[in-house]
Amino acid sequence: MTIKAYGAHAGDRPLEPLDITRRAPGPHDVQIAIAYCGVCHSDIHQVRSEWAGTRYPCVPGHEIVGRVAAVGAQVAGFAPGDLVGVGCIVDSCRHCADCGAGLENYCDHMVGTYNGPTPDAPGHTLGGYAQQIVVHERYVLRIRHPAAQLAAVAPLLCAGITTYSPLRHWKVGPGHRVGVVGIGGLGHMGIKLARAMGAHVVAFTTSPSKREAARALGAHEVVVSRQPEEMAAHAQSLDFILNTVAAPHDLDAFFALLTRDGTMTLVGAPATPHPSPQVFGLIMKRRSLAGSMIGGIPETQEMLDFCAQHGIVADVEMIRAEQINEAYERMLKGDVHYRFVIDSASLAA
Amino acid sequence: MTIKAYGAHAGDRPLEPLDITRRAPGPHDVQIAIAYCGVCHSDIHQVRSEWAGTRYPCVPGHEIVGRVAAVGAQVAGFAPGDLVGVGCIVDSCRHCADCGAGLENYCDHMVGTYNGPTPDAPGHTLGGYAQQIVVHERYVLRIRHPAAQLAAVAPLLCAGITTYSPLRHWKVGPGHRVGVVGIGGLGHMGIKLARAMGAHVVAFTTSPSKREAARALGAHEVVVSRQPEEMAAHAQSLDFILNTVAAPHDLDAFFALLTRDGTMTLVGAPATPHPSPQVFGLIMKRRSLAGSMIGGIPETQEMLDFCAQHGIVADVEMIRAEQINEAYERMLKGDVHYRFVIDSASLAA
Repeated sequence: MTIKAYGAHAGDRPLEPLDITRRAPGPHDVQIAIAYCGVCHSDIHQVRSEWAGTRYPCVPGHEIVGRVAAVGAQVAGFAPGDLVGVGCIVDSCRHCADCGAGLENYCDHMVGTYNGPTPDAPGHTLGGYAQQIVVHERYVLRIRHPAAQLAAVAPLLCAGITTYSPLRHWKVGPGHRVGVVGIGGLGHMGIKLARAMGAHVVAFTTSPSKREAARALGAHEVVVSRQPEEMAAHAQSLDFILNTVAAPHDLDAFFALLTRDGTMTLVGAPATPHPSPQVFGLIMKRRSLAGSMIGGIPETQEMLDFCAQHGIVADVEMIRAEQINEAYERMLKGDVHYRFVIDSASLAA
Repeated sequence: MTIKAYGAHAGDRPLEPLDITRRAPGPHDVQIAIAYCGVCHSDIHQVRSEWAGTRYPCVPGHEIVGRVAAVGAQVAGFAPGDLVGVGCIVDSCRHCADCGAGLENYCDHMVGTYNGPTPDAPGHTLGGYAQQIVVHERYVLRIRHPAAQLAAVAPLLCAGITTYSPLRHWKVGPGHRVGVVGIGGLGHMGIKLARAMGAHVVAFTTSPSKREAARALGAHEVVVSRQPEEMAAHAQSLDFILNTVAAPHDLDAFFALLTRDGTMTLVGAPATPHPSPQVFGLIMKRRSLAGSMIGGIPETQEMLDFCAQHGIVADVEMIRAEQINEAYERMLKGDVHYRFVIDSASLAA
């Protein structure tokens, strides 16, 4: 099956229309007609070869939503017409302890939705900037939001689960004071989710201009992190900080805001390390610095159901496929509220 | 009460004999005739003004053991002749959440055994390189080891609790695989304690010459951390790493040894930061980097009782007070197995 997609032939070349092939659905496969695909910063890193090991042609995209077009003979859980999603993971070993725990995201053999190894042509996975995708049913998520919200659901598949998983793992809930650092694609989801979980949410931004926007997203308080007196007013007050900023920045200033036994979890990975944290900032209050990467398949389903129940979607700007290079440039300037989503119908043009 | 002590008048001067005064015991005070005092790296940092805010004259020492000489009228728990210890803490606010939880070590108003604020002359606390000390009963520990082991108990008051507390907090026990990095004053206690808690203990050292010594201390395995192939053989195998090394070093090499959800806890604070850890090392397996500082008073008592029950003491080299400057130089070269202890009787000479 040959379909239309958008991708790049090299790290220094723009994305352009491509024809790619998808495998015929096997017995456990779900063939999905992609309706929308969110645009993640990881897409840029990978397609521009800023991360090691990009294989070309590269078709990014791992915030995929659409309708089931066909299912393999053994597939019981999905039927044509169902609203479904695919996130960052399309395969894993399925027998390690992590897979057994539903934490396929930590499986050593996790296969990414793009740039992962596959026997399918061209030998590596091709992502969601495409008309269709074929995925083993284990890695397909059910979407219970109204169909009219489908485009705004797409970013939940990466930005949503990447923030939901650490909030759940570190048991954020009522009575907790939670900081969310950075109000971008990830951060805007972190604010919405932490608020829906019942926490008191303090958003941190370097831009005074984002103050009102952060409140509108659900933050109870907004701190401009470049204002030392605003930061000092929150010293030792937060149980947990979700830090979504991928650019290198001073972590010590945020450690000072954590209570005893507080944790700051990083979900953004900078290309170069953050300035090294002062060990005393950890030792003095038994604080932790942690990392978290997307989430497992069962937890992604749980997140989607939680969002459907609470009416949570991403704030998105719709683009056509041919606007993707321009969209990347805007993302690099932080000029997006808060996630671009490709209308896959534009690929047919 | 004027007594003999050993301390320094400035950061660039050697320690020398001093006469100091102790307050008369108040109603809740315990007056202790110090028998031995362990020598901690912190002593060097403080007395040499390598940490900020050293007040002079500085009398270091927070690994104090001895016998009760007198008690205040309201003291019910101690009587003259009792074997007791004093660690790093001689006071705290007693009403914050941390104090309420028995975590006086994290109280914002914790008063260190030396260099802390006090109304007593000379306005800051003077530590255990002295013949006597007077301490509020709340901060006095009971020693249940045989009196013959008293000198070797002294280092438990800092090196012991500093390693015991994180091992307990991160729930080390049977079935756990635990790494202990650095085989010095702290590390040698970490190995003994983790072993006694039932964990499988892997010791890490930069010195091949310490291999046998680490086994003798109780390590099941010893890894020379400068040998990449030895490190690689332990990839993703450890649930917890207790890192006792205060010198800046590569943390990433140790993160790679942690399982998913593993934690590395630092108990040594380098004068300059470690090379900044790679965020991917945390994110890829939801790992944590944490810090821990000594322990609270109830946990210190628990640790002493645990050690008495398991026959655990430190390995010590006894010195006379006048050898302290030389001992510091040897410590800075790592030339001590594993803790110097001052025989307080030598102060009378």
